[in-house]
Amino acid sequence: MEEFGNIGVVGLGLIGGSLCIDIKKRKIANKVIGFSRRISTLKKAKSAGIIDEFYSDFNQGIKNLDFIIISTPINVIKDYFLLIKKTKPEILITDVASIKEKVVKDAERILGKKNNFIGSHPITGSEKSGIEWCQEGLFDGKVVVVTPSKFSNEKALRKVKKFWKLLGSKVILLSPKKHDYILGLTSHLPHFIVFSLLKTIGKIKYKDFVGGGFKDTTRIGKSNPELWTEIFFENKKNLLYWIEKFEENLNKLKNELIEEKIEKMKKELEKIKREREKFDEQK
Amino acid sequence: MEEFGNIGVVGLGLIGGSLCIDIKKRKIANKVIGFSRRISTLKKAKSAGIIDEFYSDFNQGIKNLDFIIISTPINVIKDYFLLIKKTKPEILITDVASIKEKVVKDAERILGKKNNFIGSHPITGSEKSGIEWCQEGLFDGKVVVVTPSKFSNEKALRKVKKFWKLLGSKVILLSPKKHDYILGLTSHLPHFIVFSLLKTIGKIKYKDFVGGGFKDTTRIGKSNPELWTEIFFENKKNLLYWIEKFEENLNKLKNELIEEKIEKMKKELEKIKREREKFDEQK
Repeated sequence: MEEFGNIGVVGLGLIGGSLCIDIKKRKIANKVIGFSRRISTLKKAKSAGIIDEFYSDFNQGIKNLDFIIISTPINVIKDYFLLIKKTKPEILITDVASIKEKVVKDAERILGKKNNFIGSHPITGSEKSGIEWCQEGLFDGKVVVVTPSKFSNEKALRKVKKFWKLLGSKVILLSPKKHDYILGLTSHLPHFIVFSLLKTIGKIKYKDFVGGGFKDTTRIGKSNPELWTEIFFENKKNLLYWIEKFEENLNKLKNELIEEKIEKMKKELEKIKREREKFDEQK
Repeated sequence: MEEFGNIGVVGLGLIGGSLCIDIKKRKIANKVIGFSRRISTLKKAKSAGIIDEFYSDFNQGIKNLDFIIISTPINVIKDYFLLIKKTKPEILITDVASIKEKVVKDAERILGKKNNFIGSHPITGSEKSGIEWCQEGLFDGKVVVVTPSKFSNEKALRKVKKFWKLLGSKVILLSPKKHDYILGLTSHLPHFIVFSLLKTIGKIKYKDFVGGGFKDTTRIGKSNPELWTEIFFENKKNLLYWIEKFEENLNKLKNELIEEKIEKMKKELEKIKREREKFDEQK
């Protein structure tokens, strides 16, 4: 598809690698060019047919690109903005980070307000990380939140939206601020709570006494500690707000327990169960 | 297997129904006889070949039994102890409830201290309930906690242990008190926390913004509200103790966030991840 030309994917982990696979399978680019700090990852990706070409030197590689997708750890995204500014500041760019306010602000600060960056967040994560977990169709049927700001270029926004749709994703637009507020609740809070729960259980080794429920509940506790520390700190304000709300609700249920309000708790749990079942409608 | 004679299973839900299937498949009983409040469930179980016979009248059916497994809701277990006391007080009995102190005490109070009841808790639960979910091999490779008290009959204990081993389970002995303390941490606390988390999220309908991690984390929030209200109240003392420990750990992590102790949190999450991975060793 001429429209996207050569696509460069920076960072070939679970998300970056899976992006390359689908870009190639769906013929969205002329060529998919991989970038990674690790030459071994690049060689592995090339020999597995995940990418067409690779560059270890970003400044060299970017010359041939029309669209860059940054799927690196959050704290190095701004370094790529700096490199891009020097070499090809007008290029179309998106990212895949789980937080958006900081990334969009960095783009505006570094690339200027007339940039061609549009933030994206595909809600397809996993506790797994690394190219060995990448897979075809990871984005198919999944939600991708695209977060234009008031400075966003309309044409760039149209192209980024189109890109995700070609991968089969459902695109939802939110402001970077709204994104971080909502994902703070639906994703960052559950991770924080699960880490706290595991911290409580982990000290006592009662491995024989956990069932499938426990394992599913705490699966996200195996997520990348570096990534999640970053997400928590970058979304600190919203996360603290949601933790407070969680504590209020925990206290309400705890008080029903202390005050032996059995019928009230039963009704409460019934309501919670019904609401939870509604979430299963989403693919 | 002559040893177990005719086995009666009272309550044909996920656990009870699955027990019947394996008792028959593994030929552990001469006959498997089902009991349920609902005639429709009994007819369904009989025509599906899950049970050999059924009785809607418990007093009538018990005459033919050598071993009774009570897998009803917790609050009716004592009613069956009362019925058994009248009709066949010496019969071998076990149950499958998620709490044990109360059940064992009820057995001693109602059947006397020279009874043939031995409490069991197979750690094989699910958020699903009802006979339609029962399955072959549910207990195979799973832990069953068996909870003798100081009054327990040695011969009854041997038989109950043997029964679970014939189903492929790993039997672990704990006092009823220790069982409730440990399961309060490994099972009841996670359920309480997930209900609190869902109470926080449920009010705002951001269904589009949840991923697979969220769904797995909160799957147990679809569990039977009546059952879990009972478990929480029957294990109130232990649960409140563990909730307090959880709150301490949540506060520690929250303070690291507030005080921007990034490196400390990263190390903390790494430790939590490593400990969590160890739980995967258990089948």
